[in-house]
Amino acid sequence: MRWLIDETHDAARTSWVASANGHPCFPVQNLPYGIYSFPGAAPRAGVAIGDSILDLRDCAVANLLPAPVSETCQDDTLNALMALGTADRAALRRRLSAILSDPAMESIVAPLLHDAAACTMHLPARIGDYTDFYVGIHHANNVGRQFRPDNPLLPNYKYVPIGYHGRASSVRVSGEPVVRPSGQQKPAEASAPIFGPTHRLDYELELGVWVGEGNRLGDPIAIGDAGRHIAGLSLFNDWSARDFQAWEYQPLGPFLAKNFHSTVSPWVVTTEALAPFRIAQPPRPEGDPAPLPYLWDTADQAQGAFGLTLEVFLLTAAMRAAGAAPVRLSSGPATSMYWTLAQIVTHHASNGCDLTPGDLLGTGTISAPTRDGFGSLLELTTGGSDPLLLPNGEQRAFLEDGDEVILRASADADGFVSIGFGECRAIILPAR
Amino acid sequence: MRWLIDETHDAARTSWVASANGHPCFPVQNLPYGIYSFPGAAPRAGVAIGDSILDLRDCAVANLLPAPVSETCQDDTLNALMALGTADRAALRRRLSAILSDPAMESIVAPLLHDAAACTMHLPARIGDYTDFYVGIHHANNVGRQFRPDNPLLPNYKYVPIGYHGRASSVRVSGEPVVRPSGQQKPAEASAPIFGPTHRLDYELELGVWVGEGNRLGDPIAIGDAGRHIAGLSLFNDWSARDFQAWEYQPLGPFLAKNFHSTVSPWVVTTEALAPFRIAQPPRPEGDPAPLPYLWDTADQAQGAFGLTLEVFLLTAAMRAAGAAPVRLSSGPATSMYWTLAQIVTHHASNGCDLTPGDLLGTGTISAPTRDGFGSLLELTTGGSDPLLLPNGEQRAFLEDGDEVILRASADADGFVSIGFGECRAIILPAR
Repeated sequence: MRWLIDETHDAARTSWVASANGHPCFPVQNLPYGIYSFPGAAPRAGVAIGDSILDLRDCAVANLLPAPVSETCQDDTLNALMALGTADRAALRRRLSAILSDPAMESIVAPLLHDAAACTMHLPARIGDYTDFYVGIHHANNVGRQFRPDNPLLPNYKYVPIGYHGRASSVRVSGEPVVRPSGQQKPAEASAPIFGPTHRLDYELELGVWVGEGNRLGDPIAIGDAGRHIAGLSLFNDWSARDFQAWEYQPLGPFLAKNFHSTVSPWVVTTEALAPFRIAQPPRPEGDPAPLPYLWDTADQAQGAFGLTLEVFLLTAAMRAAGAAPVRLSSGPATSMYWTLAQIVTHHASNGCDLTPGDLLGTGTISAPTRDGFGSLLELTTGGSDPLLLPNGEQRAFLEDGDEVILRASADADGFVSIGFGECRAIILPAR
Repeated sequence: MRWLIDETHDAARTSWVASANGHPCFPVQNLPYGIYSFPGAAPRAGVAIGDSILDLRDCAVANLLPAPVSETCQDDTLNALMALGTADRAALRRRLSAILSDPAMESIVAPLLHDAAACTMHLPARIGDYTDFYVGIHHANNVGRQFRPDNPLLPNYKYVPIGYHGRASSVRVSGEPVVRPSGQQKPAEASAPIFGPTHRLDYELELGVWVGEGNRLGDPIAIGDAGRHIAGLSLFNDWSARDFQAWEYQPLGPFLAKNFHSTVSPWVVTTEALAPFRIAQPPRPEGDPAPLPYLWDTADQAQGAFGLTLEVFLLTAAMRAAGAAPVRLSSGPATSMYWTLAQIVTHHASNGCDLTPGDLLGTGTISAPTRDGFGSLLELTTGGSDPLLLPNGEQRAFLEDGDEVILRASADADGFVSIGFGECRAIILPAR
């Protein structure tokens, strides 16, 4: 699969929406889709442009969009839009780019804009199934060492893009608070578990992958076709209760440690928008086995990774009260994924499992090789034993009530305008 | 929560639908709900009665149903019907029992019946999330011994109703063929895995639990309230590729070994219909820990188990060609569940995870203590090392192409008319 760079990526292109030009996230080169509502309205599809949201339904009604996609732009979820084929997706993007950059269109299109700050964002899609992977190899090593000191990386890791099913119902959009969960936990010194609020609440920095075209049950997806089954990316926070996880996860994997809440950022940054930021998948370390043939595609290896910078920020209640800015906990590249997105899609469907438009795949925590890029507190504090000292003197082993975690991502490439994902954020509320 | 036995369970009650009286599954005392279509029609809700299906939409349109539930009976899924409160559920059951038993209603209701043999069954609900538990303690012991000889039952088993998330998209209704999946498998003697069709395809005998009323994210379900969050039961076959499972399941649990297909029986046997068949949860073996308080409810212990007999049959291609009847592989009671359904519901929501009407919970494989009641081939053949000899001379270690697996269940109690679940069946097709 080749990822085409066309006039929509032209660095010289600007928008008549003034706030888009130079916008850190949403210049006219990005054009991510989301579901939003303006005051008094029901949820509908929109496109982020600078500090505004362009209403896709109104664009469709005004016959501004290509006919084949016009109807899919009028739903209250993006599922049908995500299901579009690559040609329709590209055509929609080109049209949106054109009407937002052509000054002659301003008088027609400007009335269809809403001030993003006055709008509410919703989940982009009705998520049929959510699957979480484990492709961050430094994370797998860091965590494996804590749960299984003798055996951090299991023998299957370098052959199998390890994944497991998560809970779709409890995925929420950025901004919705997270209630501290209660559950079983077994202190090391105790002979039996107790039940109560988690003492080891953590975040996990992930990319969320939105499934585009689906496949029929029983029909695998060839690695060369995987790209068209991906609609786009968001940021994803896989909140985790580490004490529940350590006690419950054997033999069938994480369950209540994860399914109380997951947070996804509202804007779907399309694979089309990300085309200029594709880079080669880093070669495997010498001695690592080659992927099995069903997971190997030369074109995917050549451009299966992304030139993204991922950041995590923390804003505590005390910082908020003092009017302080969030503190950055980590920053790192997204290149520490042992498997490409095409590989995880192909692996997921390799047994005939049917993927559905709007399904969500988490990459698993993406940690850089070094501490300044670790994507969870479990790793940053070495299981809580080495708490972080924050600039205001507070310490954090794990998250406390009132803490807000903020994920950000930006894509950069020479000769192209940088684009961002917007924020994925949520605050921790006390246990009920 | 008390389970009321009322006039709908009266053993003397008969139906004017002659085939219902003495019917092994669907006498007037059962009245399970399903989604069906008659030739030329779209899927709609119905009630099994003898060899017929009563059309719920037509009943609603004819004003035969209680007003508060009438609208929910006109959907093409049972999700809204499952979401009804206990009072509405009971009222609907009483009305259906009345119109199907009162001879004076025959002239009005008989035109709303369809011949079940001419109809097609569909999935009862749009399954938001599917979760599989592991409450069959003999199964857990049998399988644990094969995967972890030194450590069959992990320390958490007697405290935690172990569960994990499964794949909702690939759940199919009884009758839809199963394509033999391909996947990674690592022969014991090999240094690296290979990719190909599974050689160790198995079934798992489970009960499927349909979630009734949901709960809000963040709000647990008290054990005393769990009953009203269960709409009813079906039979469930959690097809498993044992070779994939052994290679992939650590550390995050089963994934491609399970998510290629799961089969559920089409009729939802309601908790109301099952009221007479409730029995005490067997006491825990001496020395086992008591459940933690959030999982303990005296009333649930008194009537949290079910007087069900579960059976598995196999029909091979050779048997089919010879016109032979399916052979029974196992038969056993459903009392080998270490946790009650109320306990798994309460545990699932104990961290605030939101359950949604129409979600499906599998119990996990239910095996009796002895071989004649083992609920999977993995157990019956001791991991394939001791193949079954079938009456026609064929042997089976695991399932072969053309094999059809049939699950059945019936509920019996002194003084009550027995009811059945209907069949959960599917045939294995060759790998694509």
